[in-house]
Amino acid sequence: MDIKELRTDFAGLKDKYYFNFGGQGILADSVLETIFDTYKYVEKVGPFGLKINSWVNENIDNVKSAIALETNSKIETITLSENVTGSCNIALWGIEWKAGDEILLSDAEHPGVIASIKEISRRFGVKVSTFALVDTLNQGNPVEVIKNHLTPATRLVVISHVLWNTGQVLPLKEISQVCHQYPSKKPIQILVDGAQSAGLLPLNLPDTGVDFYGCTGHKWLCGPTGVGFLYVKENLATPLHPTFIGWRSLDFSKSDLPFAPDGSRYEIATSAYPLYTGLAGAIALHQAWGNPEKRYQRICQLSAYLWEELNKIDGIQCLKNSPPQSGLVSFYTENPSQLVSQLENKGYYLRTLAYPSCVRACVHYFSLESEIENLIKQIRSMV
Amino acid sequence: MDIKELRTDFAGLKDKYYFNFGGQGILADSVLETIFDTYKYVEKVGPFGLKINSWVNENIDNVKSAIALETNSKIETITLSENVTGSCNIALWGIEWKAGDEILLSDAEHPGVIASIKEISRRFGVKVSTFALVDTLNQGNPVEVIKNHLTPATRLVVISHVLWNTGQVLPLKEISQVCHQYPSKKPIQILVDGAQSAGLLPLNLPDTGVDFYGCTGHKWLCGPTGVGFLYVKENLATPLHPTFIGWRSLDFSKSDLPFAPDGSRYEIATSAYPLYTGLAGAIALHQAWGNPEKRYQRICQLSAYLWEELNKIDGIQCLKNSPPQSGLVSFYTENPSQLVSQLENKGYYLRTLAYPSCVRACVHYFSLESEIENLIKQIRSMV
Repeated sequence: MDIKELRTDFAGLKDKYYFNFGGQGILADSVLETIFDTYKYVEKVGPFGLKINSWVNENIDNVKSAIALETNSKIETITLSENVTGSCNIALWGIEWKAGDEILLSDAEHPGVIASIKEISRRFGVKVSTFALVDTLNQGNPVEVIKNHLTPATRLVVISHVLWNTGQVLPLKEISQVCHQYPSKKPIQILVDGAQSAGLLPLNLPDTGVDFYGCTGHKWLCGPTGVGFLYVKENLATPLHPTFIGWRSLDFSKSDLPFAPDGSRYEIATSAYPLYTGLAGAIALHQAWGNPEKRYQRICQLSAYLWEELNKIDGIQCLKNSPPQSGLVSFYTENPSQLVSQLENKGYYLRTLAYPSCVRACVHYFSLESEIENLIKQIRSMV
Repeated sequence: MDIKELRTDFAGLKDKYYFNFGGQGILADSVLETIFDTYKYVEKVGPFGLKINSWVNENIDNVKSAIALETNSKIETITLSENVTGSCNIALWGIEWKAGDEILLSDAEHPGVIASIKEISRRFGVKVSTFALVDTLNQGNPVEVIKNHLTPATRLVVISHVLWNTGQVLPLKEISQVCHQYPSKKPIQILVDGAQSAGLLPLNLPDTGVDFYGCTGHKWLCGPTGVGFLYVKENLATPLHPTFIGWRSLDFSKSDLPFAPDGSRYEIATSAYPLYTGLAGAIALHQAWGNPEKRYQRICQLSAYLWEELNKIDGIQCLKNSPPQSGLVSFYTENPSQLVSQLENKGYYLRTLAYPSCVRACVHYFSLESEIENLIKQIRSMV
């Protein structure tokens, strides 16, 4: 399927130039139809009864299978959540914190994750250290920086796979090795915020060696909002306990209702199940176009083109001084808010970021060179 | 609007006899249309940008207003969640537990809530006591039973407003008074599981005096799955801290990003926003038919009729020996699973319960006397 043909399935792409995939992906018409049909099916067969309750279980398995396939993980290691921040919270609160433990996080993490860590620090007397990751975009080695910040008290390192502000991609495997090999009495675990990675680049989560990896379905995967997931490594060095708990956490096949043996143990209760078919459908759509490697390659081609053209504009400077490793292209301009507002009025969707203060444009594999050319013309006329 | 007219809006009621409102409510066609239209609107105007992000905030306010109106609460006291169990978890984990604190819960609570309390007990050395509430269905006074189980270490009492198994309705105001007046150094707080109450009976949450009240929109309110809410009393004696935290918890109007001053502080991150319009629409639909008092009156008329007719059948015995106070009518029969399965095959939707082992039938205000009569005929032919 060529890209123009694929794009006919996205009504949301027709009358606008969309560069906000890092905020929220576009839903394909076929994905929306799948969701709508599922709602009607649930009302027809259920909404609550023996038959539909079996369907709910199959539906959960189906979306977990799709996620497992896309991330090269085992289905048992996947937990469904409402969003990536929810996933990160499961990992953050599931560790048995002791006063004096230390969390090491980068200066590029999302405010929501930082706030959760601050509350953990307040409640349990955990120390929080931040290391300068943003500065390694163009020079330095993030692996070395992390290595230099580990201490005997470090229990958790919190990083993003793809930085939501600069678009930098971290070498997770090397970072895991450094953390897991650090001579410490207590194992150091790694939590990765994958908000900007799933659907952007090829993922082999077990191979990264990280302990916890949170994702959302509604950004680069172009699934509906309200469905995210968490990967938890098998055979963790320190167990992850369920915190927010509900009937979905439990194994009802056993009379004492222990926690489920798989990722369900971190799930809570009734979710918007019909949306699961939407995420499974969106993943299938991408896979029908091309495997993750092929999609990532095209994203990098397009982001290199955008980066190159942006740099030619007077008054614009890209944060990165070499072609991007992801679909996120951030750039400095004198008045980010004004530019983004003016662009949206013309049908071009971008966003500002607070730190570093800049504008971010995202390209997906199904973005068009012509869209980039039109965006460049618009920006040129505005700055 | 008469009930037959209202029912034309529910395709899901057409080809079945539905008695599972305590499991999940039926979505009105108009509510589904609102949800579908909202999805299309989001794709048209957004899905991510300045204009749609304002709409998200308005949309959140709208559904909170609808909930506040239905529960006679202030909008600031409402937190949106994914489901009632999620709401209960926010309350359970937001208390700063000390070893030796005690949680008192009834023997009628949901397994998910019990499991969460068990984990709190394990992590923080909190003692858990259970009191016999189910036995007070036909005799005894639940308020007295609770009073007799309070100790100087009790910090939280966990009860349901409407018991999900027996349908008993608890006098929350009296229970609050007993708990709040108990001579204790630490205030005793009350968490109510309102899974079976919102949309079933008139609610004035501030008037109940309880501290925390969790609900879901997808049962008696007939909203979509995946949207629940929590009410937190103003001026709590002991603060409730946010646990699972994300950008929605924070006040972005202030540079140090403190927790939001209202119920948003317990919300996390991106949800399935289009579903919020569904819950707001479902609440509006009920209110258009009649106020909560009128709806509750009709529910009680219908459940009294069902209870009376069930009791006439040989081999059936209702749990309650007087007419129900809610829309839940539970009854003993020799083989609950077989009966529920046979009934579903004939288009009658009921469910079994494990404790007490029985069958539960639910009637809503828009159920019909003729549906009850047909159900009675079917059961009579099967037992």
